[in-house]
This record gives sequence, C-alpha cells and structure tokens, in this order.
Amino acid sequence: MKLERARGTRDFAAEDALLRQQVVGTLCSVFELYGYNPLETPVIEKFETLASKYAGGEEILKETFKLKDQGGREIGLRYDLTVPMCRFIATNPNLKMPFKRYQIGSVFRDGPLKIGRYREFMQCDIDVVGVRPMAADAEIVEMAQEAFERLQLSVVIKVNNRKLLNGIIDAAGIKADKAETVILTLDKLEKLGKQAVEKELAEKGASAAAIRKLVLMITVQGSNSEKMQKLEKEVNSNEGKEGVEELRQMLECLDNQTNVEFDPSLARGLAYYTGTVFEAFLNEPKKPQLKEIKSAVAAGGRYDKMIGNFVGGGREYPAVGISFGLDIIEDALLLSGREKKRTTTSVYVVPIKAVAEAQKIAAKLRQEGISTDIDMSNRDVKRNLEYAAAAGMPYVVFVGEKEVKEGKLKVRNMKSGEEKVVSLSEAAEELKNFK
Amino acid sequence: MKLERARGTRDFAAEDALLRQQVVGTLCSVFELYGYNPLETPVIEKFETLASKYAGGEEILKETFKLKDQGGREIGLRYDLTVPMCRFIATNPNLKMPFKRYQIGSVFRDGPLKIGRYREFMQCDIDVVGVRPMAADAEIVEMAQEAFERLQLSVVIKVNNRKLLNGIIDAAGIKADKAETVILTLDKLEKLGKQAVEKELAEKGASAAAIRKLVLMITVQGSNSEKMQKLEKEVNSNEGKEGVEELRQMLECLDNQTNVEFDPSLARGLAYYTGTVFEAFLNEPKKPQLKEIKSAVAAGGRYDKMIGNFVGGGREYPAVGISFGLDIIEDALLLSGREKKRTTTSVYVVPIKAVAEAQKIAAKLRQEGISTDIDMSNRDVKRNLEYAAAAGMPYVVFVGEKEVKEGKLKVRNMKSGEEKVVSLSEAAEELKNFK
Repeated sequence: MKLERARGTRDFAAEDALLRQQVVGTLCSVFELYGYNPLETPVIEKFETLASKYAGGEEILKETFKLKDQGGREIGLRYDLTVPMCRFIATNPNLKMPFKRYQIGSVFRDGPLKIGRYREFMQCDIDVVGVRPMAADAEIVEMAQEAFERLQLSVVIKVNNRKLLNGIIDAAGIKADKAETVILTLDKLEKLGKQAVEKELAEKGASAAAIRKLVLMITVQGSNSEKMQKLEKEVNSNEGKEGVEELRQMLECLDNQTNVEFDPSLARGLAYYTGTVFEAFLNEPKKPQLKEIKSAVAAGGRYDKMIGNFVGGGREYPAVGISFGLDIIEDALLLSGREKKRTTTSVYVVPIKAVAEAQKIAAKLRQEGISTDIDMSNRDVKRNLEYAAAAGMPYVVFVGEKEVKEGKLKVRNMKSGEEKVVSLSEAAEELKNFK
Repeated sequence: MKLERARGTRDFAAEDALLRQQVVGTLCSVFELYGYNPLETPVIEKFETLASKYAGGEEILKETFKLKDQGGREIGLRYDLTVPMCRFIATNPNLKMPFKRYQIGSVFRDGPLKIGRYREFMQCDIDVVGVRPMAADAEIVEMAQEAFERLQLSVVIKVNNRKLLNGIIDAAGIKADKAETVILTLDKLEKLGKQAVEKELAEKGASAAAIRKLVLMITVQGSNSEKMQKLEKEVNSNEGKEGVEELRQMLECLDNQTNVEFDPSLARGLAYYTGTVFEAFLNEPKKPQLKEIKSAVAAGGRYDKMIGNFVGGGREYPAVGISFGLDIIEDALLLSGREKKRTTTSVYVVPIKAVAEAQKIAAKLRQEGISTDIDMSNRDVKRNLEYAAAAGMPYVVFVGEKEVKEGKLKVRNMKSGEEKVVSLSEAAEELKNFK
C-alpha cells in the first residue's frame, strides 16, 4: 500500500499554514471592521439542497461529491459557500435583516485537475443580504479595496452592471433571449481576445452589424463618467437605463480613494447576477513578476433573486457579495517577495547537562509570552543547532552548568551567529523585542 | 423540497462561531507558546489510508463516510486527525524530528446520533513526534493545564501508564493475552461503577481472587508518591517496573503548579497507547452547575508504535499527544456563566437624512479601528434601534442634519440607554475604550 494524499488535495505544513492564517486573519479583521460576523456551516449538506434548481447549476452538480449515509440518505460535500448560506437563511426564518456574514471554509469539486485547480480548496465569502440600495455594493467594493491595502497588494476593481449589459446587448440589436449566452461569451474577452469572442458570437447567431456595435460599446474608452455618458446615449431599454443609474449611484457612494474602473465588458460567468458585478485585479506595474497572475483576486456582484427563489415563499432577499481567491492571493504575496514565516517559535532552549534548569528557563520565557521550544531528547549541541536552523527559529538559548552558576544564559542569534551571555531578564527583553 | 441541514450536522451562527473562535484562539496561542506549529491536512483521504490496519480500527471504519471520485477511486472523509498526521509523516520522509504540530479541523463519523454526538464535529489535536524521554509527556500535560487556566476552567489531570497497568494486571494473576480486553473493561470504571466492572471482568474469565486483587490495586489511596510506592511493591514484571519508572520521571518533570493526580484505574479505551495516558476533568467544586459534565475535557497519551507501524520501513516514531474536546469545553464555559459575544461590531451608525455625512463618519470610525456597521436601507429610527439591539451592538451613533451642522454626533449606549452629543473624536475615544 502506498501512502499518499487523495488526488487534488493538499497538505499545508507550518510555513504554508502560517501564511494562510496570516491572510485569513487580515481579511477577517477587515470584514469585522465593516460589521460582518462569522458563520460556519457544515461541509456535508443534503444532496437535494445542493441539487436545488436555484443552486449552483448542472455543471457544478456534475462535479459534486455525492454519497449516502448509513441510513441511505443522499448527501454531498458543499461545492461553494453560497448555497449553504441560502439553506441557513431558509432554516432560520427569524434571522434579522440585513444579514452581514463572512465564511471561510473548504469546498469540494470532483473536477478535472489542472495547475492551480484542486478538488478541495478554501473559499472566503462575504455577503450582505437584505439591502436594496447601492450603498451595499459600494461597501463591498470599498471593503475589498481596504483588504488588499492591508495585504499590501495594489488592485484595480473593475465594475459593471448586468442590467446595463443587457441594455447594451439590446441596443446592439441582439434579442433578449440570447442575452445570457452572449454574456457567457463576453466573459471570455479578457482570456480569448476580441477576435475569438467575435467568432463565437457569430456562431451563436449574432449578425456582423450587431457584433460590431456590441464590441464598440463594451470597449468604449474614457474616464468612468465619460464611458457612462457615452453608453447612456446608446442604451434605450428601461433595464439598461436602470443599470446606468445603479452604477452611478454605486460610484457616488465610493470614497475617492477606491481604485475602481467601470468596464462595460466585464460579464462574470454566473447566471444569477442581477445588477452590479465586479472583479479585483492586481495593479502592480512595478512588480513585473506579478504579470503572470491574470485572473481576478476577488470577484462578486449583486444577486437579488437567487436567495428568494431558493428559500421560496415569495419573500425577497436582495443580496450582494464577494469571494476572495485565497490561493491566488497567497501566490501574489509570495511572488511579491513576502517571505514565508517558517515557525511561530521564537527561541529554542538547549540544555547542556542542566536539564532541570533549562526547563525552568523555558517555563519563565513562556511566562513572558515568548514562544519557546526546548530540546527534550538530550541531543548534542551540533544536532540541536541544526534542528533550530532547519525549523527557522531566530534564537537559541544555551543553558549550561557554568552559566547556571552565574545566573546567566547564552543567547545565540541564529541569523548573525552572534552569541552573548546575559541574564534571563535581558534575554527575555531581546526576544520579546524581536517578536 | 424541505430545506434542512443534513442529519448530525450543525450551523454556527455569529454567537456560536465567535465563542468557538475565542476558545480555538486561546488554545492555539498556548500551543504556539510551547513551540507547536499548525498543520492542515485535507478532509478527503484515500480510503485505503483510513482503512490501514494500523489506523483507527474496525469500529471506526464502520462509521467512515466512503465515496468514489469520478475516476472510480475510493476515498473517505477523515474520522480523526491522527491518521492524516501519520499519512503526512509518511509522505514527508525528510521531516525534521521532533515534529511538534497542532491541528484543528472537522472530522466525520457516520454513527448513531445521541445528545452531544454529531456526524461532523471539530477536533483539536496536539502531538509531539520523535521524543522518547518523559519530558515530552510532561510538556503536553503542563500545556493542557495552562490552556485550561487561560480558559478560566479549573481542571485536575489524571495520569496513568499503560506499562504499569499491564504490570498490575500481571500482578493480579491475569494472563498477558487478556490485558487488552481487561483494560477495555477498566476504562468503564468511572462510568459504570465498581460492581459492573467486576461483573464484566468475571464474564471475561478473571477469577474472583484476581478481580479482588486487581480492583484493590487500581483503587489504591494516598498521595501520588504513596500510591506509586504501594504499587511498586506489588508489581513484579519488567514492564510494570518500567511503567512506574516512566510515571516517576514524568511527574518529576512537572512543575508543582500542575494539578495532576496519579490514578492507576485510568485506562483510556484506545488500543494504541504504549505508556503514559491522561485525561483532564473539570475540578470546580464551587460551580455545582458544572457537575453534569462528567466526561474528560481533554485526553491523550503516548503511542510509540503506531506511527512507525503505519509508515512502515522500520523507523521508529515515539509520540505523545492530546486532544481537546471543543464542544464540551464550550458547554463548560457557558455553564460557568460565560456570556456569548453576539457580534464583533461595536457601533451601528444611523443616518437621519444625512446619508453622505453618516458614511463619512462610519469610514472615520473604521479608520480608528472601531468595528462599524451602518444602516444602508434608509430605515426609520425605531427599526434601526431594534436591529442594533437584536444584533447586540453596544453603541448606536445618530448622524442628523442638526448634529452635522454643529460638527457633532449623538452616541447612544444601548445598555444604559444614555445618549450624549459629542464630537467625532470624543465618540471614537469612548467606543475604543469600550473594546
């Protein structure tokens, strides 16, 4: 038998787990600053919940891990955090609105494996449910901007509005029943380029004139307000006009530090968006090593119908949310030169015959709040130094009989190699300041 | 279709998720203080890993959620965090020893449901792998003591040693091949009482004399050292003597603040323990409401053979670890009167016609690090106050035209009902101090 991980899964050893903790911690502190609270739902859901016609759709259902419990009940592993949130809202009818929650957890998809695609991966979702005005959309965009600032990644947040996009498609002379499939094609513009998109639109039955007009509109140039003004003149349908108005209201709510760019070609693949859509992209011209990251680092939008459809009973649940790509954010941080912290341990105590004394010193360092490891295997100095270096611990403290007699200990800075003999309180001071 | 959770699963809404975050945060900070680092392994493992004959055993395998991926490979949901750790060690042969890790994550068991038993629940494991001396056992026990101190729960940690227990069974005249099944019966002493245990031992073929002698030994009275001295005289086998010696060494390593009680009847159900075993119980005589919690709040022991057997290849991996019962710890905290924090949000901003101004004030409060929610739905004051009260937010800030003109805002303490009109910086000061 070969011991190995299941296909498409990963381990996160200390340095990877610590980076993830750091990113998640930063994100959560921003979410909480904006008044969002945590929700945890189970990994296992009833299969019929996951398969609801208002849930993730057929494509995703094909990739859903499905099993039966001992009672023969069909269950599945969640493929996202949105469907469980809808189920939570349905099973908690007295929940106060607005409901502002964040959730970070593993989701599962039994799909084909590619580089950067896993069968078990972490999602990080923030949603506000129950707010119709565009202030909510603006809040989510602003929060995303602040989260990336704190992560020290510069981003541009591209925004669009589905109603406006429908209006553009209508103005191009394409019938409303084709809007959804056209949007799926437009979503590929960034990835495939203009020509491929034009070809696909033609294959879907759009006339050459319609395609020309459509592409002209979605690639309109200028400042955000110039683009809006130009498109406002083109769009005739009520839905399109409403979209422009929503977009304007949202942009008005944003403070002027938010690096937001109206991009009428932004589509977002998912069918359930009803208004605002947005995607955050890295904007780091001075860091060419980040150029290879072309995908969005966070994305989301407004979906006013989905939860109500899902829950049923006629009640409406307007909602807007965003999802952060933890894997890609971590990649970006590492490419930016962020060093992985290899351990949380500040110091490794090495007893040189003075085992009992060394244990007391370790206990005292811990009382001072200093993360302390200690050799418990009575190894020699050389092996202990190798161990501390391999683990990435910044300091080693030697406790020998000579030092003990003098009430001192020897502190070695593992980076510089410098050693000094100091009192316990002096050592504690240095180690604390390092932290 | 009825929207509901899958059987045996739970949601953790804000107040429950926050309590869990708090407990987990406290535990992790103690683990890191002692030089343990995080490890994350996937929920999904190959079924053959989970079914290894050195893994959790047949009983647990019956309760393992099993499924196939699209490629027809058999996989399962982890039922504990120990087997994945063994698999991690096996797949990382260059891992430096000692390996000190903690892991907190959901595990899954498709078993019968009772009160307090779930199909998806969180485990919290800490293990040190690669240290043979008893200093490691002592470190784990001390760390547990410190963790409960920080949680403000008083505990007694009962310890025993499997080698000593085998020696006692031998000294009672019971054959070595019966030791394992006898230990399983002894494990029920606390739960079923002496008579039931004696009856079960008789059913397993132990003579009346052997049972009498065995029960006498495992219920020996006195201080830790008195009990050890008494038993040392009874025990003849080399294994038994070794057990006494190990126990003595471990107790010598413990600082005298550790509330540890040698209990020779302590057995622990699992077969894989090879030396030290321990269980932490609540010790709160002044809190009678905690009496109903009889189970251990943390438990573990030394298992020197399991990982080596699992990994194969002849290399030895001595190990000792402990698992904290998160659910029972949370129950104990709530029974102790710990109030659930209902939200992380400090203040709710209510615009009274001055929407843009209110948004600026919310932004400024957030810049001060104050978790701030704001009404985005233009609701009336009454509904906003109801919302803030229901969410448990301690302060509401009203931003009206009159106050804006004066450069002030109105702060309402939601607990006292007191309101005052102050400047933004005065308000920020009060809200920060509250946190």
